[in-house]
Amino acid sequence: MKKVAVILSGCGVYDGAEIHESVLSLLAIEQSGASWHCFAPDVEQHHVINHRAGEESTETRNVLDEAARIARGNIQPLTALNPADFDALLLPGGFGVAKNLSDFAVNGANMAVHDQVLEACTAFAKADKPAGYVCISPILIPSVYGPGAKGTIGTDPDTAAAFNAMGGEHIDCPVDDFVLDQSRRVLSTPAYMLATSVSEAASGINKLVKKLVELA
Amino acid sequence: MKKVAVILSGCGVYDGAEIHESVLSLLAIEQSGASWHCFAPDVEQHHVINHRAGEESTETRNVLDEAARIARGNIQPLTALNPADFDALLLPGGFGVAKNLSDFAVNGANMAVHDQVLEACTAFAKADKPAGYVCISPILIPSVYGPGAKGTIGTDPDTAAAFNAMGGEHIDCPVDDFVLDQSRRVLSTPAYMLATSVSEAASGINKLVKKLVELA
Repeated sequence: MKKVAVILSGCGVYDGAEIHESVLSLLAIEQSGASWHCFAPDVEQHHVINHRAGEESTETRNVLDEAARIARGNIQPLTALNPADFDALLLPGGFGVAKNLSDFAVNGANMAVHDQVLEACTAFAKADKPAGYVCISPILIPSVYGPGAKGTIGTDPDTAAAFNAMGGEHIDCPVDDFVLDQSRRVLSTPAYMLATSVSEAASGINKLVKKLVELA
Repeated sequence: MKKVAVILSGCGVYDGAEIHESVLSLLAIEQSGASWHCFAPDVEQHHVINHRAGEESTETRNVLDEAARIARGNIQPLTALNPADFDALLLPGGFGVAKNLSDFAVNGANMAVHDQVLEACTAFAKADKPAGYVCISPILIPSVYGPGAKGTIGTDPDTAAAFNAMGGEHIDCPVDDFVLDQSRRVLSTPAYMLATSVSEAASGINKLVKKLVELA
């Protein structure tokens, strides 16, 4: 059975991993005949957002502790991820990618990727193992794959411009499809960058994950 | 379009709503051609469990605030739920049902259901509107529907005994199926009471939701 490593960035769209995308990704991995294995950095969240009010809270939370909610406790710290043990990599979206896995939410195109995340993602790229990036997580692709890497965050002009400013080649993509950079074996799909429902998000994620597992 | 009210009990299997079951339920509602509308009681959680360590934390969290993570902010307090506005009711599982929506986790068969939850669920029952209970949430069925109500929590003997001790009639059920009490129009499925994967949980939830929306 092919093994897919999944990197989560917390638990909740506004300060962590997008929950629907994460669950849909795990389901799609199983339904493609592969197994999923969750990881998250053991660091404090950038901040905590109250998801009812949409406002910042005074709390502090740990990315790995919160991501463990999505994984039902079946998760390991990102430092335990050995790319040699896995056939493919998948990153669901959520603002956690832009706040916890990188600082894109603060620094835009001048962003830096968290060291552990960059190391893990780059290891899959160098090993020519396929990787899927969902929703906002393709914003990491230029940093991981270098100039000319193709990817999509849907059709949002500002995020697409930032993707290109970092050296990537952004390709517009509808919610029910994905973009494949064939030479780099990296896939991306807009999901909740465009989706207005769970089933819309599922349509693109299911296609991406099926192709990801095929390529693995 | 038929409207399904969904009551969540937090965000995370050990102290709130089971995340996979909640997302799978919302997806299944959409895929059955209906719309979902989330509600949760605006109360403090019974406690907070660190889902990585499995241990109780000193934090306090609000059930509605945390459930809002699953609903991407698209949620209302349970007091705003007017059963006349909806065609069906659905409760995903998770320990939150036994800790926040009732005190089953503490008091077993001597449990009480939270007032707002009992009022909402009973209103759907009295209006003869169908309701689906997933995973551990069928433990509420005897209190809502009274003596003789049929339901399943899978095959766990202690929980089944408690279900029967409260006046219900427990029926063993495999993970990929559901139990329907025809006269009361109440459905239940084991999900993570038995499931060992996301796709196993989905198999029973998809069947239950399809039937729930048909009956609505």
